[in-house]
Amino acid sequence: MTRLYFNEVATRDGFQNECNFIPTGTKVELIDELSLCGYAKIEVSSFTSPKAIPMLRDADEVMHRIKRVAGVEYTVLVPNMRGAERAMLAQADELNLVMSVSETHNLSNLRMPRANSFSVLAEVIREVDGKTPINVSLSCCFGCPMEGNVAEADVLAYAKRFADLGVRGITICDTTGMAHPAQVSRMVAGFQQAFDAAFPALQLTLHFHNTRGMGLANVLAAVQGGVTRFDASLGGLGGCPYAPGASGNIASEEAIHMLQASGHDTGIDIDRLMKIARQLPHIVSHDVPSQLVKSGLIGDLHPVPEYVRELRKHYEGSAG
Amino acid sequence: MTRLYFNEVATRDGFQNECNFIPTGTKVELIDELSLCGYAKIEVSSFTSPKAIPMLRDADEVMHRIKRVAGVEYTVLVPNMRGAERAMLAQADELNLVMSVSETHNLSNLRMPRANSFSVLAEVIREVDGKTPINVSLSCCFGCPMEGNVAEADVLAYAKRFADLGVRGITICDTTGMAHPAQVSRMVAGFQQAFDAAFPALQLTLHFHNTRGMGLANVLAAVQGGVTRFDASLGGLGGCPYAPGASGNIASEEAIHMLQASGHDTGIDIDRLMKIARQLPHIVSHDVPSQLVKSGLIGDLHPVPEYVRELRKHYEGSAG
Repeated sequence: MTRLYFNEVATRDGFQNECNFIPTGTKVELIDELSLCGYAKIEVSSFTSPKAIPMLRDADEVMHRIKRVAGVEYTVLVPNMRGAERAMLAQADELNLVMSVSETHNLSNLRMPRANSFSVLAEVIREVDGKTPINVSLSCCFGCPMEGNVAEADVLAYAKRFADLGVRGITICDTTGMAHPAQVSRMVAGFQQAFDAAFPALQLTLHFHNTRGMGLANVLAAVQGGVTRFDASLGGLGGCPYAPGASGNIASEEAIHMLQASGHDTGIDIDRLMKIARQLPHIVSHDVPSQLVKSGLIGDLHPVPEYVRELRKHYEGSAG
Repeated sequence: MTRLYFNEVATRDGFQNECNFIPTGTKVELIDELSLCGYAKIEVSSFTSPKAIPMLRDADEVMHRIKRVAGVEYTVLVPNMRGAERAMLAQADELNLVMSVSETHNLSNLRMPRANSFSVLAEVIREVDGKTPINVSLSCCFGCPMEGNVAEADVLAYAKRFADLGVRGITICDTTGMAHPAQVSRMVAGFQQAFDAAFPALQLTLHFHNTRGMGLANVLAAVQGGVTRFDASLGGLGGCPYAPGASGNIASEEAIHMLQASGHDTGIDIDRLMKIARQLPHIVSHDVPSQLVKSGLIGDLHPVPEYVRELRKHYEGSAG
């Protein structure tokens, strides 16, 4: 029974992509409820410019108002030194930096070449100087929706450059749901080969999207390869602009439900989490991709219909 | 690279659950298109009473009108001897018999105890007497929505009873999407241990639903365990009455896409199949669960936006 660690990203990766602003109080309540579910980490918000991501313009207030629970790390996305300063002032437990391994996607998303992004993030890492742990999320590690293939060697090379700068963790992201299980197995093995000996404390997290239905199959492949840390988003919130109407992030409750059913220890109270997941459609005012919210857990049984009881009696009578 | 074999069940398991009758001509056209995709098998329809399943009341006509393609087996669901006679008259390549391993589900679905169902099916098998190959689909092998747990030993015991009667294949069905990957691995290993030596020619097929999001993860676990035959339904058609709004069968195109990407040979022309899958929402007049229909294949790239081209030029200029 492997101990697995989940980072809940719905209030950052999910809400960032919503059309309507989720009220600050609702965000705080949701995070406070999630804090009681057993997550290792919650990505609370993003300290980006309110102009860039208006949906998360209340990051400082949210961080200030949430009730922190011991054992849960509250991480925030940070694009640059200004964001890092705000995050540290807000006493974030971790700064999550992000850049893409695909040049075209980086230009598209961060409006600068990868080399420039790397310089910006390297500067943040040097300035923070170990005062707050840093994670780097690498986007498009399994493919770019515009470029196509992304070389595993490029992913490992960027991970290595950040590991050399002393970051605590690397998140390998399948930003647009292009990963398939065999690729995940290869990537995980490649990462372990490159880092297990040289950087034994480096935390590897996998971040999958369910855009092409392969999300949980990829989680399974990653767990089989020895990965113990995952990002996931309650309800599967967090759409992909390249696939309108398709699923976004893997749904936390679906991944956790599958892994617990298979005997893994996720530390999560799944019943408590399901209650929160069922509130999500009301919070975001639309249906969410999660199937589990509609179907219920494996153990949520259905009553036996009256006609089946009658049939059973009938046959028991005729047999006796 | 394992050769995998797919049985397309959309026109039976899918259409059976539709609210509106799909016109016979539409069914015939769809099956004729599917016949050109490389399927090992197509479950065309069901020779049940038109009262029991009105949506498939045209089974005889559909079987008569389809253009058969060499290499594709055309199978039909058959509940009893009357159905078997109609199916053989229609020159079905295989009869697919069905009963549930759960007593409550069998009463609910077939309105008789399992013992009675077994007698009915055993009689069919004896009467058919090898003139047409027979497959038996066992429902609720991974759990019953009313009873809960279903013992693996019960599944293997029913499979053994049918194997002893000389059937060609057994399909182990996760009728309501309750299977999880570890359970699939155990079931497959148990089946192999029970049958590989004694019945080396017995064909094992796995039938999964995506009701709780685990469909493709279960396919992956089954393939890893050595399973080579799968049922799947184009678009993911085929709802589950116990989970309104949730996904039904695994989507053929999603399973095939994942397995091909991972290096397996499914024999399927995925591009051709995707064109057909994209017509499905028009045929059934509603959205279908398949994510892949919305997102496109991994290789379906998106154009680089103009602003990204401009940015790239700008930075190349400033670098030079």
